[in-house]
Amino acid sequence: MSTDHEILELPGFALENGGTLQPARLAYQTYGRLNSSKTNAVLFPIWFAGDHHSNEWLIGEDRALDPREYFIIVPNLFGNGVSSSPSNTPPPHGAADFPAITIRDNVRAQHVLVTAHFGIERLALVLGCSMGALQTYQWAVGHPEMVARALPFCGAPETSPHNVVFLESLRAALTLDAAYQGGRYTAPPLAGIRAFSRVYAGWGFSQAFYWEETYRQLGFPTLQDFLTGFWEANFIDQDANDLLAMLWTWQHADVSATPGMEGDIKRALGSITAKTLALPAEKDLYFPPEDEIRAAQYIPGGEARVIPGIWGHLTGGGADPTGAAFIDAAVRDLLATEVADAK
Amino acid sequence: MSTDHEILELPGFALENGGTLQPARLAYQTYGRLNSSKTNAVLFPIWFAGDHHSNEWLIGEDRALDPREYFIIVPNLFGNGVSSSPSNTPPPHGAADFPAITIRDNVRAQHVLVTAHFGIERLALVLGCSMGALQTYQWAVGHPEMVARALPFCGAPETSPHNVVFLESLRAALTLDAAYQGGRYTAPPLAGIRAFSRVYAGWGFSQAFYWEETYRQLGFPTLQDFLTGFWEANFIDQDANDLLAMLWTWQHADVSATPGMEGDIKRALGSITAKTLALPAEKDLYFPPEDEIRAAQYIPGGEARVIPGIWGHLTGGGADPTGAAFIDAAVRDLLATEVADAK
Repeated sequence: MSTDHEILELPGFALENGGTLQPARLAYQTYGRLNSSKTNAVLFPIWFAGDHHSNEWLIGEDRALDPREYFIIVPNLFGNGVSSSPSNTPPPHGAADFPAITIRDNVRAQHVLVTAHFGIERLALVLGCSMGALQTYQWAVGHPEMVARALPFCGAPETSPHNVVFLESLRAALTLDAAYQGGRYTAPPLAGIRAFSRVYAGWGFSQAFYWEETYRQLGFPTLQDFLTGFWEANFIDQDANDLLAMLWTWQHADVSATPGMEGDIKRALGSITAKTLALPAEKDLYFPPEDEIRAAQYIPGGEARVIPGIWGHLTGGGADPTGAAFIDAAVRDLLATEVADAK
Repeated sequence: MSTDHEILELPGFALENGGTLQPARLAYQTYGRLNSSKTNAVLFPIWFAGDHHSNEWLIGEDRALDPREYFIIVPNLFGNGVSSSPSNTPPPHGAADFPAITIRDNVRAQHVLVTAHFGIERLALVLGCSMGALQTYQWAVGHPEMVARALPFCGAPETSPHNVVFLESLRAALTLDAAYQGGRYTAPPLAGIRAFSRVYAGWGFSQAFYWEETYRQLGFPTLQDFLTGFWEANFIDQDANDLLAMLWTWQHADVSATPGMEGDIKRALGSITAKTLALPAEKDLYFPPEDEIRAAQYIPGGEARVIPGIWGHLTGGGADPTGAAFIDAAVRDLLATEVADAK
């Protein structure tokens, strides 16, 4: 994993579901410079099994997130092997004994980074793809006064029951490997991770993506090459407990569980004050566009703009030229939108 | 498995992919009586892991397939545990040594049943759901002179690459169980079948089906109850090698591989003379409606009529009242359509 990042240590970091990380280590990378008025900060959390490099396709002098103009902070997800994770936490709380971490725990650590560490009171934009979108919605609900604009893409404000079933199938495949040993493995459960990858392969792109053999655009001449060279390669070097820790975080995402919202998703979404532009993907199989279209109806001034095409969920990853251009343009649009000051 | 059926023995049944069943045993059930002119026969092949009872929801005096009017033949799929299957074939060709069987092998056995056994020259209708649809298309392409009408539902004329990936994920989950032992298990690989069921659960119904908790209509109060009481219960008593045999048949379905079609799907579909009405399901995740809508364009006079609703693939199973009524009405429509005599 990458070492070109900073670490914020959070001593005695108490977790929503019980337990404490002593300390929690939040890894992050920044791009650009914070201006003197501290008004140009963008927070860009990452997706499942990614790291801060995952977001770099949208950051650059010719991209929507231009580091000459914005100060972009990319925090790593707990469990991703760079921030505190099963694989890098010493006993007695590492590996199979790593505590359950919620999206809100991630956001709370990021909040310390943004406020106490950088002294930022308001973020010009929070955005993110997939689990990054889960974090974006949580920021918008949990800290409305701090989020001027929100752009979740290929995500949702809560993980739907179907999405939970999809994630359960990944877990079932991985943990079936006899080498997994309830997380107390001595060698990586590679067969389990391969089965996990094989299940994921059906979900990441649309049916039509495979029909059209669009994987050729990614450099894989055959379906079999794609299943191994793309899908297995994406997960095989990841730690199994890390994958399962992030998966738990994903499964339990729900902004309506934010204190004060009392399980009411409409109330939670209705409390958002950020100018919100959601970008679901047309053929996304596990965050289907209906999730964000429905959610946008309950967000004051909320808008959902569907990313067209056959790439499905992974159109949010930057490798689909059409999807990347669509997202880039939407980020520019939203950043150009004037918003009222925080109350 | 059911014993209320007939068996046609096919001695020395040579298989498309090599190997011979000595004999092949084709299990079937019939409903109604063949009329003296032998013009009222309907062939209704079954779906994956089903048996002849699976189709009975569409057969009855108040149903589209009225046994007072039609002679309905329901053949069991090779591999389903009733027709020749790994689980019921003696050594040396049973269990893990069972040969690979194609959809065309199934249709060839059914052709013997229809012609040599019953003396039928022309079928008023061939219809089927899912793998039953794969068989329906194969009948229409392989025996155009015999099929007056074809009504494939929730299926396709060939298994798409994405569908293949879905099936690979089922196989990966099942075979990862250490108890599976390459098919030479001494006790059923139940953990593998449970993981197989968990993967299948994400695919069988639509995302919205789970969102709306429609499983309550099937008598399951919670998602967890549904995952075990419906999905695991559906597969846990099936033989693992049987499941994998049927899965192989499904994965390799392709009417363009019919002799004379030279791999050309448009040519294969263009050769169909049956009046064809295809019923894909709106939210089907592994036989998406695009498959049959595209196919219908190449079938002379072909029509695709999308079954609306959120049940996804399993709307074809008869438990969705709206889907069942839609399919029933379509079967009546098609049976009422006059067709030209065979040339």
